Amino acid sequence: MEGYRILEIKQSVFENNDREADKLREQLKKDRTFLLNLMSSPGSGKTTTLRQTIAALKDEFKIGVMEADIDSDVDAATIEKTGAKVIQLHTGGMCHLDAGMTRQGLEGLGVDDVDLAILENIGNLVCPAEFDTGAVKNAMILSVPEGHDKPLKYPLMFSICDVLLINKIDVMPYFDFDLDKCREYALRRNPNMKIFPICARTGEGIDAWADWLREQTNAWIKG
Amino acid sequence: MEGYRILEIKQSVFENNDREADKLREQLKKDRTFLLNLMSSPGSGKTTTLRQTIAALKDEFKIGVMEADIDSDVDAATIEKTGAKVIQLHTGGMCHLDAGMTRQGLEGLGVDDVDLAILENIGNLVCPAEFDTGAVKNAMILSVPEGHDKPLKYPLMFSICDVLLINKIDVMPYFDFDLDKCREYALRRNPNMKIFPICARTGEGIDAWADWLREQTNAWIKG
Repeated sequence: MEGYRILEIKQSVFENNDREADKLREQLKKDRTFLLNLMSSPGSGKTTTLRQTIAALKDEFKIGVMEADIDSDVDAATIEKTGAKVIQLHTGGMCHLDAGMTRQGLEGLGVDDVDLAILENIGNLVCPAEFDTGAVKNAMILSVPEGHDKPLKYPLMFSICDVLLINKIDVMPYFDFDLDKCREYALRRNPNMKIFPICARTGEGIDAWADWLREQTNAWIKG
Repeated sequence: MEGYRILEIKQSVFENNDREADKLREQLKKDRTFLLNLMSSPGSGKTTTLRQTIAALKDEFKIGVMEADIDSDVDAATIEKTGAKVIQLHTGGMCHLDAGMTRQGLEGLGVDDVDLAILENIGNLVCPAEFDTGAVKNAMILSVPEGHDKPLKYPLMFSICDVLLINKIDVMPYFDFDLDKCREYALRRNPNMKIFPICARTGEGIDAWADWLREQTNAWIKG
């Protein structure tokens, strides 16, 4: 039997999502839990990146992961092996999570013993960008095979993210991916965006990203 | 000045999308226009696949392309160079097209002189699967870097598609992608799915896919 729960998330009843998100952040501050919302396209490497991130930070923080998926639980099974606390959220076809749904997930996960909570959002560059989940910071992954033009095509996602992880840099020689152009396009959407090129499979670049996340988490839970 | 129009699509007013989709298909049958709805994740190669498909079929059919995008027009500019008729549809943030929106696009494109119309849907494996656009057939692209497990994670998309194009097979040696497993998982969602491995960049495998599309188009416009 698996050690993780599967929670069927219900549609939110709140009319004002932004207000719910602010309330959730206030609660997280009181609970001394940092929440990261991790977004990307399908197949860009969210789960592998998460595994490496947990490996880098698990000795310093108690980590809890919410794996949102339409109805599978392959990711929760993978993350469970890292030793992190994990819950699988099923959205029943819904293409995003809002603050009310994230709150259900956090309640299911239980954050009393969690310093760093990470929401692996639905694989989708469109809808998740439109809903504040209540996370303290938003991060997204763009993988090299997807192309450097994506900030032009999914502008909202790039503009609301604090961090861009450019993943699968090991396959750069096999794709027409221009890292400088990608940076330029992304910074056009959000000039304050932090950009970390990584290879989640090999662990390359994970240290710099983990340093950033460590700093943010400490500032939130000790601040 | 570009030779293509940009059309701002309005939200549909119809309550029953399935009925609108059926009405649109009846109209397309009368107009002798075949409509293909092409879907995928961001960056899986829809536009490059479309370029190759147009090159393979442009001597036999008059081809019209609708490029749906949230607000850019990079794809329409690319497709215009193929010589196909093209219109850029802006969805204003909406994550899918339904039948009413597709009808607006077809009216903007003009189908009197079009045998084969292709809708390049929004890059998203979730929401577009939920709305019948009125297309005669649905096709999707999954690219090798996205991983062979995607039929497990985006079940609805795989179950509603008549065709699966597995793209970027040239980079298979650099990824842990199991083609047999991908076929097995996809056929579990839809046992009648046609599966074509392709490399849109080099043109590999495009002939078999173009043969299928030729046959379907002829059956519809001459039947």
